[in-house]
Amino acid sequence: MGQAKYSVGVDFGTESGRALLVKVENGEEVASSVYEYKDGVIDDFLPGSDIKLEPDWALQNPADYIQTLKKTIPDLLDKSGVDPKNIIGIGIDFTSCTMMPTDKKGTPLCMINKYKDNPHSWVKIWKHHAAQPEADRINEVARKRKEDFLPWYGGKYSSEWFFSKSLQILDEAPEIYEAADRLIEGADWIVLQMTEKERRNSCTAGYKALWNFDKGFPSPDFFRALDSRFENIVEEKMSEDIYSLGEKAGGLTKEVARLTGLIEGTSVAVGNVDAHVSVPAATITLARKMLMVMGTSICHMMVDKNLHIIPGLCGIVKEGILPGYYGYEAGQSGVGDIFAWFVKNCVPKEYSEEAARKGVDIHNLLEEKASTSKPGESGLVALDWWNGNRSILVDTDLSGLLLGCTLETKPEEIYRALIEATAFGTYKIINTFEENGVKIEELYACGGLPEKNKLLMQIYADVTGREIKIAASSQTPALGSAMFGAVAAGKKKGGYDSIVEAAGKMAHLKVKRFRPDEENHSLYEKIYTEYEKLHDYFGRGENDVMKRLKRQRIAGSV
Amino acid sequence: MGQAKYSVGVDFGTESGRALLVKVENGEEVASSVYEYKDGVIDDFLPGSDIKLEPDWALQNPADYIQTLKKTIPDLLDKSGVDPKNIIGIGIDFTSCTMMPTDKKGTPLCMINKYKDNPHSWVKIWKHHAAQPEADRINEVARKRKEDFLPWYGGKYSSEWFFSKSLQILDEAPEIYEAADRLIEGADWIVLQMTEKERRNSCTAGYKALWNFDKGFPSPDFFRALDSRFENIVEEKMSEDIYSLGEKAGGLTKEVARLTGLIEGTSVAVGNVDAHVSVPAATITLARKMLMVMGTSICHMMVDKNLHIIPGLCGIVKEGILPGYYGYEAGQSGVGDIFAWFVKNCVPKEYSEEAARKGVDIHNLLEEKASTSKPGESGLVALDWWNGNRSILVDTDLSGLLLGCTLETKPEEIYRALIEATAFGTYKIINTFEENGVKIEELYACGGLPEKNKLLMQIYADVTGREIKIAASSQTPALGSAMFGAVAAGKKKGGYDSIVEAAGKMAHLKVKRFRPDEENHSLYEKIYTEYEKLHDYFGRGENDVMKRLKRQRIAGSV
Repeated sequence: MGQAKYSVGVDFGTESGRALLVKVENGEEVASSVYEYKDGVIDDFLPGSDIKLEPDWALQNPADYIQTLKKTIPDLLDKSGVDPKNIIGIGIDFTSCTMMPTDKKGTPLCMINKYKDNPHSWVKIWKHHAAQPEADRINEVARKRKEDFLPWYGGKYSSEWFFSKSLQILDEAPEIYEAADRLIEGADWIVLQMTEKERRNSCTAGYKALWNFDKGFPSPDFFRALDSRFENIVEEKMSEDIYSLGEKAGGLTKEVARLTGLIEGTSVAVGNVDAHVSVPAATITLARKMLMVMGTSICHMMVDKNLHIIPGLCGIVKEGILPGYYGYEAGQSGVGDIFAWFVKNCVPKEYSEEAARKGVDIHNLLEEKASTSKPGESGLVALDWWNGNRSILVDTDLSGLLLGCTLETKPEEIYRALIEATAFGTYKIINTFEENGVKIEELYACGGLPEKNKLLMQIYADVTGREIKIAASSQTPALGSAMFGAVAAGKKKGGYDSIVEAAGKMAHLKVKRFRPDEENHSLYEKIYTEYEKLHDYFGRGENDVMKRLKRQRIAGSV
Repeated sequence: MGQAKYSVGVDFGTESGRALLVKVENGEEVASSVYEYKDGVIDDFLPGSDIKLEPDWALQNPADYIQTLKKTIPDLLDKSGVDPKNIIGIGIDFTSCTMMPTDKKGTPLCMINKYKDNPHSWVKIWKHHAAQPEADRINEVARKRKEDFLPWYGGKYSSEWFFSKSLQILDEAPEIYEAADRLIEGADWIVLQMTEKERRNSCTAGYKALWNFDKGFPSPDFFRALDSRFENIVEEKMSEDIYSLGEKAGGLTKEVARLTGLIEGTSVAVGNVDAHVSVPAATITLARKMLMVMGTSICHMMVDKNLHIIPGLCGIVKEGILPGYYGYEAGQSGVGDIFAWFVKNCVPKEYSEEAARKGVDIHNLLEEKASTSKPGESGLVALDWWNGNRSILVDTDLSGLLLGCTLETKPEEIYRALIEATAFGTYKIINTFEENGVKIEELYACGGLPEKNKLLMQIYADVTGREIKIAASSQTPALGSAMFGAVAAGKKKGGYDSIVEAAGKMAHLKVKRFRPDEENHSLYEKIYTEYEKLHDYFGRGENDVMKRLKRQRIAGSV
């Protein structure tokens, strides 16, 4: 055996890009590097201008993606001293749907003087929420035409997704739409920059752009029904060549090799999405195992050999997560966000002072105080809809509920009830999978929350009655990307021929697992019964008070 | 006309007794004085002993009542320089039900060495909640026997009331029950001390001891059904001579005259209860006007010439508030308490610091922040059941609910939603009165809250769509007692012959009134519709989740 081989994974996030240098043989993380995007999330003014964005806009500057490569990869080489010749592959993952218009050469229109003052020429990131009218139109037309793709997406196409954003460009800036030779995902764009090859990946195509492995994209008829100018968007501005995850996109160009210090021709994997690429990085390469990517929200990721139409999912995509499998994605739109809201808005001064005195953060203090009580002891139950409900009700107009308050209720009890509510939300998703034929035997977790909050993980285990294993890496997306980089390189070059093989060697779990306490689980079953009853009462139309209050709220603030 | 005449009112509260010297001619408050009870509320150990009380016990020391007279009345004389000869009458009011066992001479058993180590020999005050099993038995027996008094008391006899407490003594300390020549309300006991006459008042008899103006007390059969030893409680340990409010109990004894500096023979009115005595002190002497006594809780007081059986009231008592009228009392068990809970548990450090910087208290800061928004703008609605629901559901097992939370929800919005919820609770009570034939045209308020929180008063006006007038005195109970003292003295001695007359001269309103804003009222009508729907869903058996959670809470903490 020759010298150790390495691969690089680059995770393009919301505020920064993060690169990881990994030993191919065993997944050892040799070096990491972060680049904070110079322009961050652009939601106020276009950079260096007085051009104001409307509410709900969220953009990025693609120059920050190039800077990420330029800053982080040389840094990896510096820190590790690894010879670039031994770096056999590189993979990337991106937030999604993050999309932009480019010219024929792939130059983003926002980098061209003529267009740069038009906000629509910039990159719309996942949390750009200004395309709601377009999403509404897509849903209305799809329902009217009885398009069969809707059930694959929880019955609703999101304002965050590719065609909502594309249609917003057409609606509001037809000249930009016209000028765009390509409309492209960030993941595919950066791969295009690295390889000069347009290799659109099956994950973003499937989860965000209605692409189906067996049927391709929706028909021109459907797009024409949205707008006659939109009829040929796929043919004119996209590509029907979709590449499966694990395929090689091409070799690194001379220019990017120079920029990064890597060797020209280094294998580059097709792009991927952060949550999806984390699945094999958390050791999952088979069915019956669900990954929870836990942070401000939770993404629930699963694969299965067969197709099951499960209501309320974010998406079901064949080849969307692992080759040869249907990928299932569900999600909770608010989790860590809710705890952060609570800590910011609802924790009294005495607690802040106690935390400061003990030198712990407030989450830890609340965790400590909340951990001594038993399930049900507070008498509280909550609905975790502070940010709406993604799965399985797919309804952004729902809102949070707290029930059972008394004059004795303590902050840590509310905090715990909020944690429990998010766990019930996950349990509801698990049960919905199982009721629809997809068994879930094991839970895996990665992301920020499992590292930070042991009580939360134990509650998830107790509520769901399932053991939870934790991914060893604190940077699962970048690790997953590096794994796909090693697969793109292939066994001959010292990598792997499949992601399953790569996962077997490079992905690991922490020793610490969270095992359900049976007594707690049975106590939680009772509270979950209450949660479900409230969930259905407020979420399925019996009492639409949350929607009515939201409408009155909007009307009132006008 | 001779020299100005005065009367004294003494308000025996939970933590202190408060005396007021009032000019009879115009109600001018000439002097006031407060005595903080030395033993306060006894809920831990019996005073000066290591005798521990069980949970939910709450006692007082009757020596503190005598001390109140001894400390405050001389202080009034000192401060005012008024000649005791010109003080024509004295009235008192008490918290209720506050009851004690005494010997034949009226000496409380707790003052007798032989009994003082038994907690049951002490005064059980209104918030003594340890007689729930006895209350349950009373309700069960009354329902079984189809006793016709239950509907007069919201369908439920309270653990706080006279026979629950008496039966607890019998159950747990039969020797004390046996030794008690009298079981007597604090209000009647202090009058007995002042006059050597047992003149039980119609207010406590009616509201707390099931006395009915036309029918008297329940039958010995009923009491025997509770316990054979309880059969003759009324005959043996109480009195069937019940005196109407406004009657004279007697003249001040020589001993109490010496103790207080007043003149022997000064007219003493029969006793009264704080909330009830406030009605004429807030100028109300007619039907169609509701008084809200607003503090930690709200008492809603009304009179009407006719009998209407209104569901969910605390009590309906002929001669219970004003002579010649049926008195109606309803209530909300948590109001100011809920805001205090919120401020203690849910207000972030930044707000505490901002309040300190501005030199205002946190309630004022929250009020200021909350006052800029319009009804419905927060999208929140709450059920104000943090301390259960008194009227009109009469259910202590209900708990608080907050609905409509988002990641943008601010503390002041929750604070406002809690205020609104208590206002909806009052509106529900008003509407229940009206649906049952008792019109409410005007609202009056007294107590701590109207003085402190303008936003709250405006919200109550806007929610109920009614103007709210505020009693001028900040000590309405003591003023009301002084008014009854002037009535006990009678016109010949420079007082009045009726409480209506006295109220016409001595009771006043503040100039500031709270007028409903019509636009806000109509916005609130929409939210009230939601409140009512949730109220009925959670309060009337469709979803008993609150009760089930409470049971699990109790089971869990065992």
